Amino acid sequence: MNSANRKDRLVFVPLGGSGEIGMNLNLYGFGPEGREKWIIVDLGVTFGDTTTPGVEVIMPDPQFIAERADDLLGIILTHAHEDHMGALAAFWPDLRAPVYATPFTMYLVRDRLAEAGLLDEVPLHEIPLGGHISLGPFEMDMVTLTHSIPEPNALLIRTPAGLILHTGDWKIDPDPLIGEATDAKALIKAGEEGILAMVCDSTNVFTEGEAGSEAGVRDELIKLVGEQEGRVAVAAFASNVARLQTAVEAAEYNGRTVCLVGRSMHRMMGAARHVGLFANAKPFIDEEEAAALPRNKVLYLCTGSQGEPRAALSRIASGSHRHVKLSPGDSVLFSSRVIPGNEKSIFALQNALASAGVNVIGEKERHIHVSGHPCRDELRQMYAWARPKIAIPVHGERRHLIEHAKLARELQVAHGFAPRNGDMIKLSEEGAELVDEVPAGRIHRDGDILTPAEGGALRERKKLAFAGAISVALAVDSAGRIHSGPEANLFGLAEPAEGFDAVIEQLCETAQNAVQSISKQDRGDELATENAVRQAVRRLAPRIWGKRPHVDVIVLPL
Amino acid sequence: MNSANRKDRLVFVPLGGSGEIGMNLNLYGFGPEGREKWIIVDLGVTFGDTTTPGVEVIMPDPQFIAERADDLLGIILTHAHEDHMGALAAFWPDLRAPVYATPFTMYLVRDRLAEAGLLDEVPLHEIPLGGHISLGPFEMDMVTLTHSIPEPNALLIRTPAGLILHTGDWKIDPDPLIGEATDAKALIKAGEEGILAMVCDSTNVFTEGEAGSEAGVRDELIKLVGEQEGRVAVAAFASNVARLQTAVEAAEYNGRTVCLVGRSMHRMMGAARHVGLFANAKPFIDEEEAAALPRNKVLYLCTGSQGEPRAALSRIASGSHRHVKLSPGDSVLFSSRVIPGNEKSIFALQNALASAGVNVIGEKERHIHVSGHPCRDELRQMYAWARPKIAIPVHGERRHLIEHAKLARELQVAHGFAPRNGDMIKLSEEGAELVDEVPAGRIHRDGDILTPAEGGALRERKKLAFAGAISVALAVDSAGRIHSGPEANLFGLAEPAEGFDAVIEQLCETAQNAVQSISKQDRGDELATENAVRQAVRRLAPRIWGKRPHVDVIVLPL
Repeated sequence: MNSANRKDRLVFVPLGGSGEIGMNLNLYGFGPEGREKWIIVDLGVTFGDTTTPGVEVIMPDPQFIAERADDLLGIILTHAHEDHMGALAAFWPDLRAPVYATPFTMYLVRDRLAEAGLLDEVPLHEIPLGGHISLGPFEMDMVTLTHSIPEPNALLIRTPAGLILHTGDWKIDPDPLIGEATDAKALIKAGEEGILAMVCDSTNVFTEGEAGSEAGVRDELIKLVGEQEGRVAVAAFASNVARLQTAVEAAEYNGRTVCLVGRSMHRMMGAARHVGLFANAKPFIDEEEAAALPRNKVLYLCTGSQGEPRAALSRIASGSHRHVKLSPGDSVLFSSRVIPGNEKSIFALQNALASAGVNVIGEKERHIHVSGHPCRDELRQMYAWARPKIAIPVHGERRHLIEHAKLARELQVAHGFAPRNGDMIKLSEEGAELVDEVPAGRIHRDGDILTPAEGGALRERKKLAFAGAISVALAVDSAGRIHSGPEANLFGLAEPAEGFDAVIEQLCETAQNAVQSISKQDRGDELATENAVRQAVRRLAPRIWGKRPHVDVIVLPL
Repeated sequence: MNSANRKDRLVFVPLGGSGEIGMNLNLYGFGPEGREKWIIVDLGVTFGDTTTPGVEVIMPDPQFIAERADDLLGIILTHAHEDHMGALAAFWPDLRAPVYATPFTMYLVRDRLAEAGLLDEVPLHEIPLGGHISLGPFEMDMVTLTHSIPEPNALLIRTPAGLILHTGDWKIDPDPLIGEATDAKALIKAGEEGILAMVCDSTNVFTEGEAGSEAGVRDELIKLVGEQEGRVAVAAFASNVARLQTAVEAAEYNGRTVCLVGRSMHRMMGAARHVGLFANAKPFIDEEEAAALPRNKVLYLCTGSQGEPRAALSRIASGSHRHVKLSPGDSVLFSSRVIPGNEKSIFALQNALASAGVNVIGEKERHIHVSGHPCRDELRQMYAWARPKIAIPVHGERRHLIEHAKLARELQVAHGFAPRNGDMIKLSEEGAELVDEVPAGRIHRDGDILTPAEGGALRERKKLAFAGAISVALAVDSAGRIHSGPEANLFGLAEPAEGFDAVIEQLCETAQNAVQSISKQDRGDELATENAVRQAVRRLAPRIWGKRPHVDVIVLPL
């Protein structure tokens, strides 16, 4: 029985994506308090950077919903970007619910699940564009929007407590090159039906106007490629399939043949072709064939626009790419945005290219990038169509969500709620009410290990990164007599004027004195010896280096 | 005798500032090859970031000129920014030459030298604006330009081999608020005399148009402060004295009293007042007085616009500042640029402020910042005035210098040379010729220690940051028998599913087996034992963590 009774409630809980751009994990629950049935909308990751050394992937902690896996009816993925589907394989074993997505997304989901050895286990339901999903109290319709990847979907979620519009990622582009234009009709119709709450993308809320059309990028890229006389490499995110289409058109218009460079380019192109895209494109060539072409007849489509050291473009810039070489007079067009935090690595890449005589052209110089997310005018249009009673901004940092809620109020939306991850928000005709706060941490993929962000490993490594490490070992008998050592090693510490040998000697003497100063009753006690040595070395180190290295002490009992 | 003879040559050697923005160290030499007399123009630092953990300050390696200190005639500082004078105190003991600067710069130089205990040792020569310096073959005139700090000077350097214009940092601002407008007359006159080479700022060579006038910022800031109803904090670089003036005017216009927050604000204001600036400003108040004022009567002028964790604004945002509190409805105006690499810390600061209900307004939202460096139209104007035979772009990354040399060629400059640090460039009527490459590394201030960047400490720490550390110790007799241990400690490693205790046991077993597998002739050998243990642990670690931690082994002989 799905009909509402007095005790049923509808709640929204973001576990990721509220407070950061990326790493989306949204929950909707309906039912009596504490006995709700749940759906997950999107299950994404975000990526580490120089502030998270050794952690490449960061995921929302799914603990809250994993504990309710029995009441989890399904996982719906709005589109195939990593920040919306990248955590599926890692967490599915704890969730074990069926997965729903449209064909392009599902193609890439299968790819990922196969890699993780889960393909045979996960019930997959491929939904057509505009299709319907029925899960307990949730009746859902996919609504086609526009974004930078094929098949971006909003979800209309009908519940006994009201209708929700979950936008996913979107923009308004009358001429998107890939996929249909925004299905405004469906949005207007839902608005007329009456939308209780809209959960909406906040990425570009600080940017006035519109994100701009991909068609504009195509025109400029066609022109810009036409101006080049040498080889052209276009650097873009492989996941920006619209941009790949744009680059392919720019190549063909200028009589250049396309060569894909980078593993994820091939992977995305596979998915795109699976849904019928690029069907009319001229055949691509491989890297060896491309190298044999005249310089003005080839266009490389490359990964690595963010200066990722192992991606194709960085290897090309350093001259270490096996088949792709760029020479003076060749050009690299950065058809992508600079992700905050990546500036230094991007600039290093661009400097290396410039040093090699390669022309570097970016989105600042020429109009060769547009965002896939809505700017303020597009948000205004969406609110005009949907006219929700409640605005719940997601997909943004704290300041984005607050600004978006403010914008919604200016647009006469009755209730705005800028959530934090873990907020349980009850949605009803009375508005949005915070009814609980549930665990909502982050999980790091630290090497091969999934570990809570607050688990301490990264914090310890940052201490090591700042101040280095000293290890000390000594062998002590039960009377407290030293039989061997102390010996000390340094790692990550600069050489002082007196030289490494002299300070190691000083450290060892200090450790030895510390052992000899241990009070009689503690002598020979391993722990007391360890503490005494550690404290003494810790006191000395700042006087040598002006910083506090990690001090590791091993006392071997004899 | 300073007159040129056939063997004399004029050379320019950048040791810093060519390949990076900041850290300027320029040398000019004149005389017979290998026996030149030298001057230094500027001696600056740059600052570390998340890519250089534990290193806050980076300096050019002065080794080449330190080895020629006997032939060093003087150190001329063009202006008081850290990237032009911040390394003086650290390196002066190796250089021991007299220092020349105009009054504002000299005030801050004295401050720094006093801190370093060098004030009584360094011969200081305060030069008036437009003043002359005569050092051996170098006859120099200071030319007043415009920048974001008082008294920015270009240097006209007359040598027997020709006239050089060393621009320092500059822009063209007809209404600069602080200081005189650019002394175009002097530049035009020098151009008519005939400039052999111009060594010129490249910071904004990728930006079309002009940097914009400080007067425009003043108008907007007056308006914006007028719109605010709560407390206003303006975040700016203390070294941007022009901006401090602008903020003070915006406060006074709106009936607000200024309160300086942050040590460097007070320091810069002291220097500014020393040269007669702010003489007509209303008295500032201290933090306690400011807290007692009505919210709409105060304007805080704060350091910390880059999200530096220990600066005033971060402490205000976290609520830990002793006297300055901001509440919902108060506003922070970021009147500064985002330095690449600082995005994450700035956004974190802005999110914290937004979370506290504070309005955050930056240069993207309102016109409250202009650069102090020349954009392309200003560069064009400078080349039209100076008409040098040779263009030497400095103060930029590689791609800036290359683009600037290209621009100069478009402007009909006969010779362009985009130098690398350490290039020794001979300047003559024939053009610019690379005649040598001299050592030009970087020095890190790593804690209290000055150490070559390539010294290894930072590289080791980055390894630790990525993969953590394992230390192992054991006590072994001369027959190779283990008497105690192996014991192992971990630091910076995530907990695997089997738990820390289990993997430590596994590591110790592995170490023990490694010792027992040592060939007979090596048994009991310390180094062989250490290597065997290290190799075994190194092989095991990736299977547990999927990464390669640093493995430190201490074998204690018995």
